Amino acid sequence: MGVAVDIDARRCQIVRTLDIVGEKWSLLIVRNAVRGQTRFSEFRDSLGVPSDILTARLGTLVAAGILEKRSYREPGSRERSSYHLTESGLALKLVLAAMVQWSDEFNPTVYGPASILADPETHEKVELAFVPMGDPHSDEVAILPGPGSLATW
Amino acid sequence: MGVAVDIDARRCQIVRTLDIVGEKWSLLIVRNAVRGQTRFSEFRDSLGVPSDILTARLGTLVAAGILEKRSYREPGSRERSSYHLTESGLALKLVLAAMVQWSDEFNPTVYGPASILADPETHEKVELAFVPMGDPHSDEVAILPGPGSLATW
Repeated sequence: MGVAVDIDARRCQIVRTLDIVGEKWSLLIVRNAVRGQTRFSEFRDSLGVPSDILTARLGTLVAAGILEKRSYREPGSRERSSYHLTESGLALKLVLAAMVQWSDEFNPTVYGPASILADPETHEKVELAFVPMGDPHSDEVAILPGPGSLATW
Repeated sequence: MGVAVDIDARRCQIVRTLDIVGEKWSLLIVRNAVRGQTRFSEFRDSLGVPSDILTARLGTLVAAGILEKRSYREPGSRERSSYHLTESGLALKLVLAAMVQWSDEFNPTVYGPASILADPETHEKVELAFVPMGDPHSDEVAILPGPGSLATW
């Protein structure tokens, strides 16, 4: 976060998370990866992010272990890179889900939710709650298209 | 988020949340407000954020209903403004808590956590989990200084 004089800054988990995903576009790249996108052109075209910025953001996310870079080659084309969420990257669904839930309550649209938090197996709606540490609980979630979505994923 | 061509963008809850708190410093201002800070000078000095940027971010957060602006006057001083979390702003603890929890699992430090998620009444540790929608659950959390914290709040 730049010139923080807060001596506690690099220990704070919020700062540490923002260091990785706090720049513009980063969380939306993760969102689109959660939706199944893997290719540079998919991220660029769906987000409208300039190529040089996308390159930089993907580099940061790979360096931080959020995305894993792999190679693929389509017939007749040169080798290209694809980007796949690691376990750490997939776990950022927790942060995305928190934003979805906060927006649903405090900043909703008339169209209904674009994304719905659901049990990955049953697709029943779920929500984030605070439970006693160590209690058995689910940290699994699927983020599915809702009634307000114009996109499919 | 600027020039998004994603037609779904302004419906997406993640985009809608980032529109409000996605700029640099915004979530750290909210974090510090959660810790009890209310004054411009407190935010500026603890974060090291330039005054003009802090003014802009506070304005955005007030306009979005995250912070409420009030006036106060200390003896011998001119009237100044203080900034107080609204219900909507306090609820952003959900997003902060998600970042704390993700960092604890995937990006910890050797110093231990700077912040701990706890039950507001008992101070027992809690964690975020996905529970069935509509089930009784707690959405209350206190974010307390942990062993890795160099700050107090």
